[in-house]
This record gives sequence, structure tokens and C-alpha cells, in this order.
Amino acid sequence: MATSPESEHPVKAYGYAARDTSGKLSPLTFSRRATGEKDVRFKILYCGICHSDLHSIKNEWGITTYPVTPGHELVGVVTEIGSKVEKFKIGDKVGVGCLVGSCRSCENCAIDFEQYCPKQVQTYGFTNFDGTKTFGGYSDHMVADEHFILRWPENLPLDSGAPLLCAGITTYSPLKYFGLDKPGMKLGVVGLGGLGHVAVKMAKAFGAEVTVFSTTAGKKEESLERLKADHFIVSKDEEQMQSVAGTLDGIIDTVSATHPIAPFLSALKQQGKLVLVGAPDKPLEVAAFSLIVGRKVVGGSNIGGIKETQEMLDFAAKHGITADVEVVPIDYVNTAMERLLKSDVRYRFVIDVANSLKPT
Amino acid sequence: MATSPESEHPVKAYGYAARDTSGKLSPLTFSRRATGEKDVRFKILYCGICHSDLHSIKNEWGITTYPVTPGHELVGVVTEIGSKVEKFKIGDKVGVGCLVGSCRSCENCAIDFEQYCPKQVQTYGFTNFDGTKTFGGYSDHMVADEHFILRWPENLPLDSGAPLLCAGITTYSPLKYFGLDKPGMKLGVVGLGGLGHVAVKMAKAFGAEVTVFSTTAGKKEESLERLKADHFIVSKDEEQMQSVAGTLDGIIDTVSATHPIAPFLSALKQQGKLVLVGAPDKPLEVAAFSLIVGRKVVGGSNIGGIKETQEMLDFAAKHGITADVEVVPIDYVNTAMERLLKSDVRYRFVIDVANSLKPT
Repeated sequence: MATSPESEHPVKAYGYAARDTSGKLSPLTFSRRATGEKDVRFKILYCGICHSDLHSIKNEWGITTYPVTPGHELVGVVTEIGSKVEKFKIGDKVGVGCLVGSCRSCENCAIDFEQYCPKQVQTYGFTNFDGTKTFGGYSDHMVADEHFILRWPENLPLDSGAPLLCAGITTYSPLKYFGLDKPGMKLGVVGLGGLGHVAVKMAKAFGAEVTVFSTTAGKKEESLERLKADHFIVSKDEEQMQSVAGTLDGIIDTVSATHPIAPFLSALKQQGKLVLVGAPDKPLEVAAFSLIVGRKVVGGSNIGGIKETQEMLDFAAKHGITADVEVVPIDYVNTAMERLLKSDVRYRFVIDVANSLKPT
Repeated sequence: MATSPESEHPVKAYGYAARDTSGKLSPLTFSRRATGEKDVRFKILYCGICHSDLHSIKNEWGITTYPVTPGHELVGVVTEIGSKVEKFKIGDKVGVGCLVGSCRSCENCAIDFEQYCPKQVQTYGFTNFDGTKTFGGYSDHMVADEHFILRWPENLPLDSGAPLLCAGITTYSPLKYFGLDKPGMKLGVVGLGGLGHVAVKMAKAFGAEVTVFSTTAGKKEESLERLKADHFIVSKDEEQMQSVAGTLDGIIDTVSATHPIAPFLSALKQQGKLVLVGAPDKPLEVAAFSLIVGRKVVGGSNIGGIKETQEMLDFAAKHGITADVEVVPIDYVNTAMERLLKSDVRYRFVIDVANSLKPT
């Protein structure tokens, strides 16, 4: 018997979905599974809009199956728990990021790197272990195994904290993994968008001296005054770039448009590390010599595991780190996507789900 | 007053030099400085022929000033020491690698990374602190500050050990620095030449399971039987490459011809490291996505510091590691260069300097 998103599970759900490559989002009724013994069900209060959502709804990565309900920065309040749930109770504030499942037994899962599990289940557009599709946070509620549920720190705002579940961990994890979390380090952040502005805050919280690289000279004031970066460089200005040559311990490159990385490799000191967290379509050109002479590396990093995401949330709460957000109602989401495409947001849209999403 | 290589210093020296971009080497009379208080002078017994020497004599890197006497894999016996030399005495067996000077005070020198000192003095084709040019090991003797002199381990052969001073440290250092020195690791070595064959031996000595990647199917037998590699893959064979996808902890890529690295990134497991020690002219293409999804890195590495080179020599002596060499007289050097260009050597030429170089 064929199943449909609306009837395959017993619990009614509703949200917004794109149905074709136009990416236009409209109301969708679907369903979610019953609460299993280890499951936590929660009402979604806020959900961030990540640039990945935009790629997904337009099938720009070629892997979208429609309908797709995006959203992997979910914050909410627990409404139901399974009989064997140990870490949460009804009423708890919780979050879900990019992952809602993994095999829990491979060598990656064993060391809390679920993000590299070959059987990982991403929060939307993936296939659950029961064969049904995952639907993201542009919806009324979520259910997931408690392993993938994050405790929401008491003093972390729900709305401006939501984007940390992707943008936060995507920038926090490489700073930690690549050893760029030592006080006094000189770090660069390339690109000042959803990821970049959080990267600046994370790096500052670790005690780094932070240089923002942007192609937009107009972002200098906000970089220095609003985000408290220490320096601002117009990356297209060769003279400015020359002034930082050989000075940085590490750089987080958040730009997903194709761009030359040679100037950033030059900005690194010996044994410096350039970490890509944005993924341009076309291959980047890397001169071997530029890596060899200073034992530099180009690396990449993809979100983080669940344990580290919790650590990141606690770190953010401790250091007062949130995203700079514009909170919008869900019926604004198509306009938000258009503005996001033009980088017309400082720096992250967050959907006020609970106050604007009504049953269809 | 203009000086000449022959008269600028008090001590007469002789060797072989290239005088133009033909790269043809012929006898040269030059001079070396008097033995300073901290200097060690030694008679050169053997000198390896590195592929860099070939690049240099033909000015393929655009930085050669003629005449150039190459050679940065020198082994010899001490003939004179300065009054403040502490570590060596006349008669000691010693070596000199790629470096004969550095500032000794910068942050790199302070942590024994002289190879990254901006003021480093390379063994040939560089400028000494006194403004004179450095001449390499295709010559009768050498003089250098004792800091840059390596103690030659008792049981390490002089001829087949000489190439370790460049090929050895170039492969040993990245295995250590990038954490690829743990027993049981699965490592790849790309390219089976002067560097590659030593990389296989170093990796095996660290306890790794080693896979050789070569474009030449005919190198399988020598890889497995002579060099004791565990596996051999023809890197142009997609099916063979697919068989190792996602399995390796690290790869040392020794190929200096332009080549695709995407297949090697695919061969790495999560968090795997591809380290370039050969420097192709053209930039390599790196797909950001290939790094991001598995938190992989592409790095480079350049020889090693003096302290680490000593450690490498001691490690090689302990594990019986030498290069596979063809010892030749110095008047064979032009033929050797022609054969090197065709990769017609298993795997390193070493000049028997003491027995073949006569005063001009």
C-alpha cells in the first residue's frame, strides 16, 4: 500500500513545504510518528532559516525530493516523552539541529561524531530508519530520539539562539577541532553572513584577535562596532591583504560562492589553517607550494556531533552568544528567502513558528 | 671591490657547478669561509642527488643564480672545528641537509622549526649572512655552524643514508606533525620515487599498513616485495581506487607533476589528511565539499627542523631505514641527471664524492 506524508504516521502535523524547484513554500499537512519509548516530542517555538534551506527548496544540490519542509534550527518545548526517556521531561526547553538520527554503533558514532555517520538521518529531506521521509522545523512540532535532542540552556534566548543549532556548531566545531580555540590567537573570518557573524562571536569568546574579511567595504562599521571584531579587511584590496600577510593562526571561510583562496593562504602564518565551512560549487584552486613552504593546511568542517552541539550551546549561554536575527512570521518565509538570496538580512531570519503557524 | 666565488673566502674549495640553464655540470673552483668559533668543517664523502637539484641547475623555479653547485644531502667526516664547538670533534661522521643557517631568534627558530625561519640559509643557491653565496655538496668539503650539523648514527650507512637528509626528513616530519605516526594506521603513499620509497619505509617503521599509489602498474612487485608495502593500487584504475574509498587515515603525496587529488581525498576516511610534499607547478583543484563532509584536510610540509632531522636519523638507524641508492662517481652526474629526469633510477643517485672528485 502506498503511503503519503499525510497518512503514513499516526500523529497529524502541519507546516510549510516547497513542492517543486520554484522553491515556493506553502502550507502542507503531513504526519509524524507516535512517540517511541526513547522519543521526545516537542512543540516548535522558533526555527531559523539557514541558507541550506534555500538550496534545498530549489533542489540546487540535486538531492531534494518534494515536498520538502526545511528547517534544521528548531527550538521548542517538550509536550510528550517516551517511557524510557531519561534526560527530558514535559515542559523542558529543547532544540534540534541538523541531525535526528544515526546508526549509534559505527566508529564515528562511538566517538560522538554522528555528523560523519554514513547512516545519519538529517532533520529534513532524509529517510528515517522506518523508510519515511524527514520533515524539518518549518512545522508545528517535532519528534526525535532523545539522543538527538539538545537541552536548552536557561539563559539562552529561544529566538536568537535557534540559529546556533547550525550556524553556531558549524563555526564552533572547527575552531575546537583545528586547535583555533586558544586565547590570544589571531583568527580570520571570511564572509559576514549567517555563519560568519557567529564565527566572529565564537572566536572572540575564545579570546582571539579577530579579523573580518569581506568583499563589502560597507560592512566595516558593523564588523567592528556591532560584532566587536578587532580588524576589518576588504578582501579585494590587495594592499590591505598584504598588510596581514603571514599573520593569522587560522581562518574560517564561510563563503559559499566560488572565490580565490590564495590570498587567505597568504594571510596565514606558518602552520596556519584555512577551514572551509561554506561549499562553493566549483573546485577551489590550491597551489601546493603555498601549503608546503609554511606547512599550512586547507580543511573543511561540517556541523558537529550532538555532544559537541550541547557543549556549544552551553558555551554560547555562558558567553552571551546569540545570532543577530530578524524574527518573522511563517507567512513571510517566501519573502525572507528572496531577501536571503540578496544577503538582505543582518544576519539570520528566524521564524516565530508558534505565534504564526496555524493548522491548515 | 667585486669578489668572486674563487677568492671571496680564504679556504679553497672545488666541486661541480652548472653555469647556465642547460644545467650541465662541470668542475668549479670556489672558496669557503675560514672555520669560525662555532663552525664545523668536514670533508664530504657522499652527497645524494635530489630532484630539487635538477630543478635548480636548470633554473626551473626561476630563483637560480649561476654558478650553482647543488647538493643538500651531504655526509662526511669532520676535519676542523672552531674553538667554541661543543658537539663535535675531528673525525666524527656528520651530515648536512637543506639548511646551513637561520636567524636563531624568531618564533620558528625558538621551537626548532628553522625550516620556516624567514631568514633561513639553504645549503646551496642562497645567501649567507656575510653576503656570499652558498655552495652545496657536489664539492670537496663544507663548513657550517655546528647547530646545522647532524650527528651521524654509528650504524647508519654513509652512502645509502645520505638521501635521508632531504628525502627522509621530508617524509618523516609530516608523518609526525600530522599525527600519522600511530601504529596500525592505514596510510597511503602517492608516487614511488626518491621521496615515495622512503615514505613507505618510514610509514612501515611507524607500524602503519601502507598502500602505494602509482600510475605505473609495473611498480607493484617492487612496492610489495622490495619495499614491503602492504598494498599497491594503480591510481589511474577507477575500480582499484574505488576499492580503497574511505579507508585511509592519511596520505603522503610525493608527486611533483600536476595530478588530480580528488581520488586521493576520496580514499581518505573521515578526518583523514592528504599531505603534499611534492609541489606541482599548477594549482591543484580541491572541491570544498570533499573536505567538508568528512572534515578532511589537504596540507603541505617542507623538510623539517634540525632537531627533528637528528631525531629522524636516529629513528632511521634504529629501524634500519636507508634509501635504495645507486652510487655513482661525480663525473657521471650529468648522465645521472638525464636518467633522473626519466625516473630511471631505483630510487636515488648518491655521488661517491671522496673517491671521485679531484681538484681541478
